[in-house]
Amino acid sequence: MRTSIATVSLSGPLTEKLTAAARAGFDGVEIFENDLLATPLAPEEIRARTADLGLSIDLYQPMRDIEAVPPEEFARNLRRARHKFELMRRLGADTVLVCSSVSPLAVDDDALAAEQLGELAALARDFGIRVAYEALAWGRHVNTYEHAWSIVRAAGHPALGTCLDSFHILARGGDPKGIADIPGEKIFFLQLADAPLIAMDVLQWSRHYRCFPGQGGFDLAGLLRHVIATGYRGPLSLEVFNDVFRQAEAGETAVDARRSLLVLQEATGLARPPAPVVPTGVAFAELVTPDAAPVTGILGALGFTRTARHRSKPVDLWQQGEARVLVNTGPAGRRGGTVLAAVGLESPDPAGAARRAESLLAPVLPRRRAPEDAPLDAVAAPDGTELFFCGTPGSRAPQEEGDAPEPLDWTGDFEPVGDKPDGGHVTRIDHLALTQPWHQFDEAALFHRSVLGLSAQESVDVADPYGLHRSRAVTSADGGVRIALGVGPAPSGDAARTQHIALATDDVVGAARRFRAAGGRLLPVPANYYDDLAARFELGDGELDTYRELGILYDRDESGEFRHCYTETVGRVFFELVQRDGGYRGYGAQNAPVRLAAQHAARPGR
Amino acid sequence: MRTSIATVSLSGPLTEKLTAAARAGFDGVEIFENDLLATPLAPEEIRARTADLGLSIDLYQPMRDIEAVPPEEFARNLRRARHKFELMRRLGADTVLVCSSVSPLAVDDDALAAEQLGELAALARDFGIRVAYEALAWGRHVNTYEHAWSIVRAAGHPALGTCLDSFHILARGGDPKGIADIPGEKIFFLQLADAPLIAMDVLQWSRHYRCFPGQGGFDLAGLLRHVIATGYRGPLSLEVFNDVFRQAEAGETAVDARRSLLVLQEATGLARPPAPVVPTGVAFAELVTPDAAPVTGILGALGFTRTARHRSKPVDLWQQGEARVLVNTGPAGRRGGTVLAAVGLESPDPAGAARRAESLLAPVLPRRRAPEDAPLDAVAAPDGTELFFCGTPGSRAPQEEGDAPEPLDWTGDFEPVGDKPDGGHVTRIDHLALTQPWHQFDEAALFHRSVLGLSAQESVDVADPYGLHRSRAVTSADGGVRIALGVGPAPSGDAARTQHIALATDDVVGAARRFRAAGGRLLPVPANYYDDLAARFELGDGELDTYRELGILYDRDESGEFRHCYTETVGRVFFELVQRDGGYRGYGAQNAPVRLAAQHAARPGR
Repeated sequence: MRTSIATVSLSGPLTEKLTAAARAGFDGVEIFENDLLATPLAPEEIRARTADLGLSIDLYQPMRDIEAVPPEEFARNLRRARHKFELMRRLGADTVLVCSSVSPLAVDDDALAAEQLGELAALARDFGIRVAYEALAWGRHVNTYEHAWSIVRAAGHPALGTCLDSFHILARGGDPKGIADIPGEKIFFLQLADAPLIAMDVLQWSRHYRCFPGQGGFDLAGLLRHVIATGYRGPLSLEVFNDVFRQAEAGETAVDARRSLLVLQEATGLARPPAPVVPTGVAFAELVTPDAAPVTGILGALGFTRTARHRSKPVDLWQQGEARVLVNTGPAGRRGGTVLAAVGLESPDPAGAARRAESLLAPVLPRRRAPEDAPLDAVAAPDGTELFFCGTPGSRAPQEEGDAPEPLDWTGDFEPVGDKPDGGHVTRIDHLALTQPWHQFDEAALFHRSVLGLSAQESVDVADPYGLHRSRAVTSADGGVRIALGVGPAPSGDAARTQHIALATDDVVGAARRFRAAGGRLLPVPANYYDDLAARFELGDGELDTYRELGILYDRDESGEFRHCYTETVGRVFFELVQRDGGYRGYGAQNAPVRLAAQHAARPGR
Repeated sequence: MRTSIATVSLSGPLTEKLTAAARAGFDGVEIFENDLLATPLAPEEIRARTADLGLSIDLYQPMRDIEAVPPEEFARNLRRARHKFELMRRLGADTVLVCSSVSPLAVDDDALAAEQLGELAALARDFGIRVAYEALAWGRHVNTYEHAWSIVRAAGHPALGTCLDSFHILARGGDPKGIADIPGEKIFFLQLADAPLIAMDVLQWSRHYRCFPGQGGFDLAGLLRHVIATGYRGPLSLEVFNDVFRQAEAGETAVDARRSLLVLQEATGLARPPAPVVPTGVAFAELVTPDAAPVTGILGALGFTRTARHRSKPVDLWQQGEARVLVNTGPAGRRGGTVLAAVGLESPDPAGAARRAESLLAPVLPRRRAPEDAPLDAVAAPDGTELFFCGTPGSRAPQEEGDAPEPLDWTGDFEPVGDKPDGGHVTRIDHLALTQPWHQFDEAALFHRSVLGLSAQESVDVADPYGLHRSRAVTSADGGVRIALGVGPAPSGDAARTQHIALATDDVVGAARRFRAAGGRLLPVPANYYDDLAARFELGDGELDTYRELGILYDRDESGEFRHCYTETVGRVFFELVQRDGGYRGYGAQNAPVRLAAQHAARPGR
């Protein structure tokens, strides 16, 4: 089915919105009236521009407060409509959205509404235009899709149909089953929007908090299946009013929008992108740094050993157990200080994972490799982190028939330097925490879910001394891959966006002691925190003293325990040592405010 | 009565919160547990710090999920409470807040709740501590203040009382009249918070959207009168959870908080600051600029004449009708480009207005004047704009008895330069539009309301191509002073914060033609806007053509009409020509999206 997006969903002037929609691969657009009013382009120029971009204009919207009004008011409305139909002819738009009236002049009289909408449709037909009548969730007398449809049916005019909007239906708890009662050809348009499940005034919810399908809590796939079953063959169109998207870059929003629609199409059998290939583990985390010493100092104190060097690039492999950290001192590091720039994900089918990512519009990164290097497929996550799909050690890529299989094991690109890991306390990477750009928190979760096939956990609020953070983890079923996506309280530069690598250990006390003995500095934790621990949990005195001495934080959930501590921060990056016992599933969010305050206190200035 | 503020209402580390509260003049603080956990100061050090600052610790909070639970759970709760009471002894805090339980373990059994709270109070008394039991609006079984009080009464323990929180009472639509039934000595604490009247989940509303008294929609004065009538003599304490305040500077928030409490105290007869002196008109708007030519070019084309020069400063007075614009090329202009730095307000009692402002904690600005200058009292608005209280022409300030009255007419500081205004179309300053810092939109409205005695109008949302703006006007009753306070969609630098001076005319067409003839450039308005005007209003063709030619925007309300157009922007400042007819009360908000889009389009780059 064709895909479309309302211009109101994207930021900037109309021309930028159109370009963004076309580049993201949409087939058409809804022209939102305010965008037309504000553009210096004439309607004919907009028509030509959309055509040049390969876009159709699928809808002009909205017309408001038309129906069920006294005759003299309706005469004024028809006069207004005639102006708009003339405009639509110039624009080349053949469907107009009419929202159910919110006017105090409107009366509760379905027969009058049907009669006047029929008259409007008759006028529209003279211009070759169809009228799609939609129930606003806060319409004065008409606020359900069933009611709007019954008026359309009563009017019985061929140029009058209904428009379904998933927000207006689902926000009021409507049952989409009744959609089956509407003939597909009388559904003139379908608008799709999701929304987070928050209890609030429906008008405010609609105007500020809509989001793209899969970013909120509505069952859009269920609704869409009902619509498809009617025989509807019009476009799937996204109409999202969102305060954050209004501030975001239109090109990125359009790509996120189209990805969300692709995922919805996949869920309803309308599209069949390559199946997701869930990563099985973290092959490596790659730090890019202008100065390796502070980072390698920490890695060494944590028990990592430099085991290999890349054959063609200034990249060292530091290893401990199954935890691998690449330290890259190449040119990229000169730009932004020390950052976690890339993550290697172990995949049972790296090429398949890359095909999935590409089909869902993830930017595929050019392979910057020497001819002898293993073929690493990589895409960019919304925050710019490079995600490499790596084979498991010893795996080989399928080639053209007859060729010898190409080695997939990225470790073959590295030349051992002779040092063997000496058996420290770290076993693997437990999770990676990546702070997202402010505009892209919901997109980031959808990206990791849909592109990588990870599951998103609940979003949690975390109080920082200077604002609320939000955090949401995406994980594979067995916890082999865990990524904690975070976002700060407001737009802020990259420097404020910390990232961290959490290292799993079976003995966090031993690991912390070893780190300190080797000269490492752990983040100091206030004594008051431990007094509170003593009040909340019955820990042995010795245990508590040990935590207090080392700065180890403690948490417990219904299934297990979590002990963790933090190194100092280098550039944007710090490390965490974590010990999970008994199936603890979280990330110590309870302790995050104390950690954040301690990190602020440790930062010079502010 | 004593005033207090919860540390959670302010941003930053605990030490900064305490300093901010003390500097703003609060008598005490509530220590929020998370702030204590996150500080490196020991409880004894916090106690010493607050004492040094002249602050008492009026409350430690919160204790949660204590009451109406099975015995083994209650035993654990008592153990936890004992730890906290020990902590409070070190802290020197004698009252603890216990919130009604939200635990799934709690049962609906008032007798059990009373018995266990009584036991808790008995333990507290051993530490010299009082327990203040409060109904959370979302408490599992206890969620009204009447219910919490009935349990406290049933327990009958001298160390157990109730805590009233205006948010928890008013958010559920509770009737504060019943407060009269509680003996004042059993109200152990009073927490005050306002909130905007939005329909949303009460927990989210409470945790993210509380605000200071007078910034929201609750009748806090009504509630407070009931509390005072009981004989309550504890502190008036502000407890505000607000996402925006969490990001704001603690010192400014604390001052805004205390001002809001002073206004509430005034409203309930608990404080008698000097009465407000409502300004009667705008004496002048002062632009500070590093380069006068672009601004004076526009002023000249608008029909302004340079009529006088300040006797001691590089400031010119440009005048037309009753509109006066000062152009200051002094040192301040070299910092921030062209800005609207000061506003002169005509006041029937400038000294009284200044006393009012000072008593409400407005920063009083040093008088930077030569001995012969008129005494101008000035304060800083939250956005840094300097507000001067000016006498009306010819007025004289009262002096010490026997002295000759000092002239109050600021125009006497200016030396006429001989040019007389030539009678253009501008009659006066219609309004000033000042964009506020992101954190201070609500504070700005409260400041202008309480300090200047202006009335705040409804807040409106305005769509900009890159995000939503909000705008709210504060006005005097006769419209002699109108200030439109605006705020952009997110934190942004000063450069993005435009300001404008709207000039009233009885003939906007003539004024616009004159401006253009004199070489002025008006903001171009898209043709599509005028097609829409034609659809919405039956304007004569000639009228519409004239608007289209000149870029004049049009609006209408129930009482009148509004025609307006804009100059180009210089630095942060532009001018608007406005014609109000028939009692139109607004500011053309309907047209603001078109204006904002045109201004973005006119800006080079972006």
